[in-house]
Amino acid sequence: MTVTDIRICFIGDSFVNGTGDPLCLGWTGRVCATAIQLGYPLTYYNLGIRRETSADIAARWREECARRLPPTIDGRVVLSFGANDTTTEQGQQRLSLAATLHNLAAHNARIAALCHAMAAVAQELGVPYLPVCERLVQAQRWVQEAAQSDGAHPHQGGYAALAALVQAWPAWWFAKAP
Amino acid sequence: MTVTDIRICFIGDSFVNGTGDPLCLGWTGRVCATAIQLGYPLTYYNLGIRRETSADIAARWREECARRLPPTIDGRVVLSFGANDTTTEQGQQRLSLAATLHNLAAHNARIAALCHAMAAVAQELGVPYLPVCERLVQAQRWVQEAAQSDGAHPHQGGYAALAALVQAWPAWWFAKAP
Repeated sequence: MTVTDIRICFIGDSFVNGTGDPLCLGWTGRVCATAIQLGYPLTYYNLGIRRETSADIAARWREECARRLPPTIDGRVVLSFGANDTTTEQGQQRLSLAATLHNLAAHNARIAALCHAMAAVAQELGVPYLPVCERLVQAQRWVQEAAQSDGAHPHQGGYAALAALVQAWPAWWFAKAP
Repeated sequence: MTVTDIRICFIGDSFVNGTGDPLCLGWTGRVCATAIQLGYPLTYYNLGIRRETSADIAARWREECARRLPPTIDGRVVLSFGANDTTTEQGQQRLSLAATLHNLAAHNARIAALCHAMAAVAQELGVPYLPVCERLVQAQRWVQEAAQSDGAHPHQGGYAALAALVQAWPAWWFAKAP
């Protein structure tokens, strides 16, 4: 198998950015570092932006990815979003941290419902989709670290858990050496 | 000293992206991880794009940074570019790796000349500027790793050396704990 110049744009929200990870890798950096260590010639572009909804991402993804993925290389795009779509907002004001923590269970239920709906759409479109919401809620590290942090974003343990889910996913491109 | 929500956009070329670093951090991820470990509440946005010249960066920096730095947070921008400006091109075709290696000394001389010129402009504008070209050429790890790699980009040792230069720079915001 010939492996050429692979470049990936990860586009999405703060969970793509890796917000809260003191190692500045997030799950995206971890899975790319693993792929490089397996021998893939990978370039890693992180295009996660905090607070963004799917509407924000829809408005920019094509332009930002096109700049980074010239036609001469093996360009790939990974989308990850949803949590901000389900956040309730009051006018221009975000909920306070206390209110967000109070609503955490209800918010997670809205995320889970969205997750199931997105999985159905992805299946219809023939696009690989990895549902992570429920598995992260079950993962102790993610929930504990988010509680110790801002109520939403974990530290390195949570991101490592998410990276492990992607790494173990049969649809992930770089599960084993090329 | 009150420390609020600091978000930094690093904008530039492949050296900002961290191309070649198997840990997917580059110098930008390393200096941000160090700042977070010192206690700064930092969000790290990496906007390096391979092959880009200062003209490419000038065309996109304002838009990509504005999306990531809302007025309510402490937003900062770090620019790093130049090496691609001095690359000779023949029509649409890049030089072969062999030719690039052959020209490496001359190319480094052009980068160094540009570095001095940019330092003068930055001084005139009152913008902090860290010249790194000559110090990286003197750094054994950078040159050795670039030679073992694609002739331009180092692996993790070279990026760690560049991160150390930024970390030791008096103008760097996060040299010590807040």
